[in-house]
Amino acid sequence: MNAQSTLKPYVIGLDLGGTNSVFGIVDSRGEIKATTAIKTQGYDTVEAYVDASVAALQIIIEQVGGIETIKAMGIGAPNGNFYKGTIEFAPNLEWGHNGIVPLADLFSKRLGVPVALTNDANAAAIGEMIYGVARGMKNFIVITLGTGVGSGIVINGQLVYGCDGFAGELGHVIMRRENGRPCGCGRKGCLEAYCSATGVARSARELLDSTDRPSLLREIKSEDLTSLDVAIAAGKGDELANEVFKFTGEMLGAACADFAAFSSPEAFIFFGGLVKAGDLIMEPIRKSYERNVLPIFRNKAKFLVSGLDGASAAVLGASAIGWEI
Amino acid sequence: MNAQSTLKPYVIGLDLGGTNSVFGIVDSRGEIKATTAIKTQGYDTVEAYVDASVAALQIIIEQVGGIETIKAMGIGAPNGNFYKGTIEFAPNLEWGHNGIVPLADLFSKRLGVPVALTNDANAAAIGEMIYGVARGMKNFIVITLGTGVGSGIVINGQLVYGCDGFAGELGHVIMRRENGRPCGCGRKGCLEAYCSATGVARSARELLDSTDRPSLLREIKSEDLTSLDVAIAAGKGDELANEVFKFTGEMLGAACADFAAFSSPEAFIFFGGLVKAGDLIMEPIRKSYERNVLPIFRNKAKFLVSGLDGASAAVLGASAIGWEI
Repeated sequence: MNAQSTLKPYVIGLDLGGTNSVFGIVDSRGEIKATTAIKTQGYDTVEAYVDASVAALQIIIEQVGGIETIKAMGIGAPNGNFYKGTIEFAPNLEWGHNGIVPLADLFSKRLGVPVALTNDANAAAIGEMIYGVARGMKNFIVITLGTGVGSGIVINGQLVYGCDGFAGELGHVIMRRENGRPCGCGRKGCLEAYCSATGVARSARELLDSTDRPSLLREIKSEDLTSLDVAIAAGKGDELANEVFKFTGEMLGAACADFAAFSSPEAFIFFGGLVKAGDLIMEPIRKSYERNVLPIFRNKAKFLVSGLDGASAAVLGASAIGWEI
Repeated sequence: MNAQSTLKPYVIGLDLGGTNSVFGIVDSRGEIKATTAIKTQGYDTVEAYVDASVAALQIIIEQVGGIETIKAMGIGAPNGNFYKGTIEFAPNLEWGHNGIVPLADLFSKRLGVPVALTNDANAAAIGEMIYGVARGMKNFIVITLGTGVGSGIVINGQLVYGCDGFAGELGHVIMRRENGRPCGCGRKGCLEAYCSATGVARSARELLDSTDRPSLLREIKSEDLTSLDVAIAAGKGDELANEVFKFTGEMLGAACADFAAFSSPEAFIFFGGLVKAGDLIMEPIRKSYERNVLPIFRNKAKFLVSGLDGASAAVLGASAIGWEI
């Protein structure tokens, strides 16, 4: 087993996004040896998508010494179910939105290596544990702040999948039980409705509309306003934009205080676009957490920013799932 | 190892409560072979408490064939830290309220067997997994509804202790972020402030004070009203008492919906005095859960009442920790 592992020094990582599918061949130190990509859309069937993927992969597999050097493949994908290796009812995939796609099996049969699949936030958590700031940690929570709010929870050194493979949906705990904002999940008041990129833009629009206070953000058409605009304005010292980040961070900190009551993690690790705002978002998170958390948990948890390089983080995270097989 | 285990067919369980310390010697089927008890209070030092415990234990250990038949001891205790085997700053123990008591070590040295210790809700969770309704389950949450609201969380077949041994404080997630009731932990709006026995009594008092509606509960002096009175009145069809249970169950169901987003358990198992109200509390919990939970989790989780016999449940739970050593 060990002898075989040393003969197979690489795993393939696939970051399957709504637009692009990015492949990387990664060694055990997290170094990406070769990379390629295809468009995710434009295929009628999942088989056609896998055909195009394997054609692109063949080239980089040859570059690293052939399929004999590949131990496994890991896929990070929306609505990925780790237990079944399936993508289930993914609304943004034209070959996957109306059913259950056995993607891990399809790749495994074509490549002849084991393939594991999970959602992107879980992949990020394993990536942090193997290559990132969570090395050596057994209990931590990764929170991804992007279009949505995702999470990957590690307890006792294992990713939490729950009874059905769908555990770790911390973007959908309820933070406002009354008059909550509508969320994409069909319910109201979810963390994601406030702390995702779209949630931040909405908070900014609401604050702009409800006051006359001056702000750089007034120069942008309300419907075009993004969380990036808020971050840029906040970085320039815009008070209103800073207030939006403070509101967002305070809610995230209060949510993390509840998460601590669940699994008492050593660290909360933040990942994704919003985190680029740095202390503008991290400071309100930390302060709100310490103010809200149960006394026995005070001054224990670390608040960290992902240690994975932005561009390759998702591929590294996906590849990391491959080492876990 | 196995041969030795069969020669040591028993574990000792200690349910260490604020008033009584109940000991049982238990076999692997959960049958209590012998039992004894001492008062928990009345000792100046923990050493004196352990002396009295061991004196009482000697008698029942002899009854089952001597210390050679004992594999280990498990203790369920307030503020128990599994990692360290300590009781930490337990407010209700006169020999333990002002520091860290290495109780597992003290018993282990006196008895010559390994000793594990955890809090009572965690002991209940292990008890359900080994002897109760959670047999065969790998992912479930036990919620104890007593003087407080406690919890024991099992993920991948392991109890969740977190980085410091204090994970699983689900009684202290915040359910009312505005105008929340004060909680014993010093914060406001905790689940425990509403759904513990004292929380239920308070809900009844508030409802009685805020309306003129008739109720059997009006026959009881407000300050003497307990959750048991509410349960008895509800059982007799008292509308106001039923409304109190409905309110309590709805909040528990909404809380469980958030817990599902964390660990997607196969079952929620309820334990403790309030559960004796049966469907009066369980039905509102179930209905509220299904109404509040993220769509992918709907109609999946079971809602169960503890399968452990009331009187011996705590001792069985504590003993179960011994098998896990």
